[in-house]
Amino acid sequence: MTTVRETVHDLLRTWGLTTIFGNPGSNELPFLDSFPDDFRYVLGLHEGAVLAMADGYAQATGRPAFVNLHSSAGLGNAMGNLTNARAAHTPLVITAGQQSRAMIGLGAVLAEPDLTRVPEPHVKWSFEPARAQDVPRALSEAFHLAALPPAGPVFVSLPLDDWTKEVDPHEVASLAQRKVRAAGAASAELISELTDRLVRAQAPALVVGPEMDDEYAYPLVVALAERLGAAVWTAPVPPRCPFPTRHPLWQGVLPPSIAGVSERLTGHDLILALGAPVFRYHIYRPGPWLPPDAELVAVGSDPHEASRAAFGDAVVADAGAVVAQLLDRLPERRAERPPIRQVADVPTPEQAPFAANAVFAELARCLPVEVPLINESTSNTIQFWTHLNRSRPRTLFFPAAGGLGFGLPAAVGVALADPSRPVVAVLGDGAVQYGVTGLWTAAQLRLPVTFVVLRNGGYEGLRGFLEPLGVKDAPGLDLPGLDAVRIAAGYGVPGEHIATGAQLTAALKAAGTADGPRLIEVPVNRVS
Amino acid sequence: MTTVRETVHDLLRTWGLTTIFGNPGSNELPFLDSFPDDFRYVLGLHEGAVLAMADGYAQATGRPAFVNLHSSAGLGNAMGNLTNARAAHTPLVITAGQQSRAMIGLGAVLAEPDLTRVPEPHVKWSFEPARAQDVPRALSEAFHLAALPPAGPVFVSLPLDDWTKEVDPHEVASLAQRKVRAAGAASAELISELTDRLVRAQAPALVVGPEMDDEYAYPLVVALAERLGAAVWTAPVPPRCPFPTRHPLWQGVLPPSIAGVSERLTGHDLILALGAPVFRYHIYRPGPWLPPDAELVAVGSDPHEASRAAFGDAVVADAGAVVAQLLDRLPERRAERPPIRQVADVPTPEQAPFAANAVFAELARCLPVEVPLINESTSNTIQFWTHLNRSRPRTLFFPAAGGLGFGLPAAVGVALADPSRPVVAVLGDGAVQYGVTGLWTAAQLRLPVTFVVLRNGGYEGLRGFLEPLGVKDAPGLDLPGLDAVRIAAGYGVPGEHIATGAQLTAALKAAGTADGPRLIEVPVNRVS
Repeated sequence: MTTVRETVHDLLRTWGLTTIFGNPGSNELPFLDSFPDDFRYVLGLHEGAVLAMADGYAQATGRPAFVNLHSSAGLGNAMGNLTNARAAHTPLVITAGQQSRAMIGLGAVLAEPDLTRVPEPHVKWSFEPARAQDVPRALSEAFHLAALPPAGPVFVSLPLDDWTKEVDPHEVASLAQRKVRAAGAASAELISELTDRLVRAQAPALVVGPEMDDEYAYPLVVALAERLGAAVWTAPVPPRCPFPTRHPLWQGVLPPSIAGVSERLTGHDLILALGAPVFRYHIYRPGPWLPPDAELVAVGSDPHEASRAAFGDAVVADAGAVVAQLLDRLPERRAERPPIRQVADVPTPEQAPFAANAVFAELARCLPVEVPLINESTSNTIQFWTHLNRSRPRTLFFPAAGGLGFGLPAAVGVALADPSRPVVAVLGDGAVQYGVTGLWTAAQLRLPVTFVVLRNGGYEGLRGFLEPLGVKDAPGLDLPGLDAVRIAAGYGVPGEHIATGAQLTAALKAAGTADGPRLIEVPVNRVS
Repeated sequence: MTTVRETVHDLLRTWGLTTIFGNPGSNELPFLDSFPDDFRYVLGLHEGAVLAMADGYAQATGRPAFVNLHSSAGLGNAMGNLTNARAAHTPLVITAGQQSRAMIGLGAVLAEPDLTRVPEPHVKWSFEPARAQDVPRALSEAFHLAALPPAGPVFVSLPLDDWTKEVDPHEVASLAQRKVRAAGAASAELISELTDRLVRAQAPALVVGPEMDDEYAYPLVVALAERLGAAVWTAPVPPRCPFPTRHPLWQGVLPPSIAGVSERLTGHDLILALGAPVFRYHIYRPGPWLPPDAELVAVGSDPHEASRAAFGDAVVADAGAVVAQLLDRLPERRAERPPIRQVADVPTPEQAPFAANAVFAELARCLPVEVPLINESTSNTIQFWTHLNRSRPRTLFFPAAGGLGFGLPAAVGVALADPSRPVVAVLGDGAVQYGVTGLWTAAQLRLPVTFVVLRNGGYEGLRGFLEPLGVKDAPGLDLPGLDAVRIAAGYGVPGEHIATGAQLTAALKAAGTADGPRLIEVPVNRVS
């Protein structure tokens, strides 16, 4: 006989889940007892940061990550960032300690009789095993389900007295051997139909989304775009960068409004959306869904996203696999290529405060393309994308649901995925505050993350919405009296206030070869 | 005709809800437009802090507080502290901005089709009005329901395009005039029965809970205890201090285990529990619910708490009103008084690190009893209660669900309830990090809060659970490299590292007359 804990340790090892992102409490101690030497516990000081670290790690590695939170309160602290993980389709096995089974119903401290209901709106599956002996199989279900398309977070509640209970090894031995995979590809008939539509199209365009940002799909999409000679747009509010931004076919990011999308796609008769929800709007600017006579076909993994859209056809499939199938069939298309996007050269001014454009232009000049970037500077997203220079998959991460608090700790998680390689996080001075404790984990683990805090002294992204929403003014938009450099020092992260262009250039160049964490506060102009 | 926004402003004014605790996003801007001059917007930099500030404010004032959060992500960030507000029965009207109605179903950015499901496990009621015109009545329902016993948080989702819609003034004029009250008292027959049981009891005891900690019930409970000459215990894991801690009848706090409660109550034949759940256990130590032959009657406002308990009788009523009714009937009881609790005098040592006992003894000597205390130092709760000197209602607050992150921002909210009066928060160095951004609000509003950070360099409360849970060791219990003084400086709060007993005494005395925020970091010994 063997214990639940030993069995689960073995399974986690089999699944490659030996990194545990957590913040512990008394409900979790029995799970953490006899913590194996080959496991790693990544401690975050706040569960929102813990979840975002795991999210960044899973997105950077392309594999599920394991999260262990403390009871209902700790799970609650992570619920904001869980909206981002859900929207990003991040495979996360989220667990929380539950009270001793004898005290759950009694409503003891740290007991939550309805714990599975708490994360339910944001996860694919939420479960509390009925017996201790069911914990290993429940975690197996969680691991496989999280990774199957559409990938996403799942939740398992784990009563604290289960870990030392015994299980019959014969009952659980089969779990480690299971392979559970999605078949992925489309039928020959469907590929034939899609090929015909692409061949018949006069002016096809591609709209690419976050599902294409992996090692498999990324080069295939580039090959498809080149085969078609088609304009390529990134879908609105992109959480990832699924297409090389200096590729001559890339036209930019679609605007996040109904009217804006159809205006931008005018001239195209067939839009093939790959691995993107159709579409993530933000401001309500009504209009036609598409240009007149244009058709849309969306290929992606999420049945709900496919069903939710109000227009166009959809195919639920692995979009990368479908692109590979199309490339097997599709002839070269000889037609005029779309115009090449021009990016204005912006020199770095001598003195702060800087224009955001200038900071991002300098960032593109200074930073190698293989250094992953995390962006959570919502005030400056347009300028960020204008100057962005990316040509590899998994090198850009943004909060997928738009919830602030992802960026700073996600950068820590991205760094953990490969600590030999520096990471740069571009963060608004407001955004920093939703995940500020992530700095401590970066300091403790000496991760090579450079946190670039753009200080404009307010929620300027929000101020930018005043006019589109017809709002005159609102309280709560100013952020005076924040000093991110001093705060970082309190967490053990050295920092610097940037005052000159020369300092900015030096700091950004150093970021590309950093061997530890650093924070620079960069004064930028308000956009409005 | 008038707009939804104007109507709601007028109603909030009528209800005394002119302080808005919030963190804004684009969904909330139309609500915040034309913000009235007589309203106050209290900005928090993280929604967990926002919710706890409102919780502290509502608990300190005894009135509902209004919270406005940003969409699903912001509401999610507040879900951890919402567990505390629910357990504390804090009347909170929590709102979040929803996307434009036309884009909710489309799953736009910042839209949550199922937004009402997110807070549902933790609130009394969760609602999204079906039409803009229903917003004023929905908020009326929320306001009244939050305050009615059992008080607690409620949630209303508010689509962003509703605020400028017009409502018929005749339809909403009735809302401002409504009085909705709970009748409260018990029938004469019930009071007669309870009086008879108390008169017949040989050795009655009172167990008092957080519902008795208000201006009405507090003196009544003292009078009842004196009339009966009964031992008084505070119910386990107390979030408030409902009885004077230097009163000769007060015996201390009951331990949070089944066996511990019955051991401590041995010798009593009738236990009257007032305004407390029966009971909030933490460690599972089984045993008899009560001493042999003892009976229990619990009087409190919460039907679920009354039903959930596994033993004793319960009366769902306003416990303060029932005590007043009992005092009208009950004769003086002439019997031996229970022994008087002795508190050892602990002098303050000369040099840090200090024993926690010494810090709390000094706190009791230095701090006037009317200065509200917030405690979130879970490592040192027993020592805290041993030396606590409280003799007024609403002067002690602790996270009711045990979820960390309440204490620091709740102190800000308690200070806002009466900014002319200093407030002291006693916080663990780990606990600080779950609500650290509250420091900024304290600095901006120049609130007289002294944050006493007890630095033991680890999750020591948690380490204290290793042995009772039979756990050898666990990762993630050490917190090196945190400097709360430097962090506070980054938020604009001045601070000091305490090294000597003289510095500690001076700082604690100054806390009682503070006119602005200050943080002191006090090294304390590990308990274990």
